[in-house]
Formats: sequence, structure tokens, C-alpha cells
Amino acid sequence: MEWTDVLGIVAGICTTASVIPQIRKAWKTKEVDDVSPGMFATLMLGVGLWVIYGITQDDLPIIVTNGASLALNSFMLYLMLRYRKKKK
Amino acid sequence: MEWTDVLGIVAGICTTASVIPQIRKAWKTKEVDDVSPGMFATLMLGVGLWVIYGITQDDLPIIVTNGASLALNSFMLYLMLRYRKKKK
Repeated sequence: MEWTDVLGIVAGICTTASVIPQIRKAWKTKEVDDVSPGMFATLMLGVGLWVIYGITQDDLPIIVTNGASLALNSFMLYLMLRYRKKKK
Repeated sequence: MEWTDVLGIVAGICTTASVIPQIRKAWKTKEVDDVSPGMFATLMLGVGLWVIYGITQDDLPIIVTNGASLALNSFMLYLMLRYRKKKK
């Protein structure tokens, strides 16, 4: 493994793990009103396409990190649907 | 330009643009209490590292999209600092 692979994996861990504090917050407070559903929908489409791009480039860091990101963002979207309030 | 470059750019536009609905929402409602600052801090560190990774790989889609992402997320972090309320 090249050091650039390690760099890509660390970068990927950060961008992938970034949603974890948001999941924790939503889980704890059960409040998601200020979080944008459009953000997570667009993000999931994007990371899905990144996985395909990674496959075409045979680029393991891109595939693994965006695959994990897709899973975590799906869970966040589930929490948003579960905790959202009706429009005022 | 290869079709895989186009795929990478479309993927990057989605992940980069994903924060725009969140910026719009925060701008309109001036409410950011449910949004995690930890998410945006970790995300900015991550996309910064992705830019460096892209440079080492000479991968234009990664450099351009994560560079734009860094700028947009910085703006969102500014909005969060501006609109956050004191802890209850």
C-alpha cells in the first residue's frame, strides 16, 4: 500500500465519519427540524456515483469510504424521517 | 476527457452541491440548533485531505469538487456560528 492510499483512506474516514456527530445529535435530541433532507438526498446520490467512479478507476479508498458513507447517510435519512415534525 | 471523468465530475457536483440545500435552509430559517458543528468540522478536514489526495493522484475531479466543497462548507460553518443560540 502506497502512502497516498493511506492519505486517501484517512481523507475518506473523515468525510465518511463526518455524519456520525450528526447521527449522535439527532439520536440524542430527537430533533431534526433544522437539518435539510435535500442535503442528505443529494449526498446519497453523490456518494453512490462516487462508488461507481471508484470502481471504474479501480480506486479502493474511493470505493470503500463512499460505500460506508452511503450506509451511514441512509441511517441518518431514516432518523430524519422518523423524528421529523409536521410542517407548522 | 474520458466518460469516467464526466462520471467523477457529476458525482462530485452532487456531493459538493449537497450542502447547498442546508445553507438555504439555515439562511432562510436562521435556525441551526439541530445541525451538528462536529459534522461540518470533520467534513472540512476530510475534504481538505481529499484535495491533497487528488493532487497526488493528478485526479482533476477530486481536486475541483473537494475544493469547492471546502468553500461551501466553510460558509455553512460561518452560518452556524452566526445563528447558533446559547446552550439552554
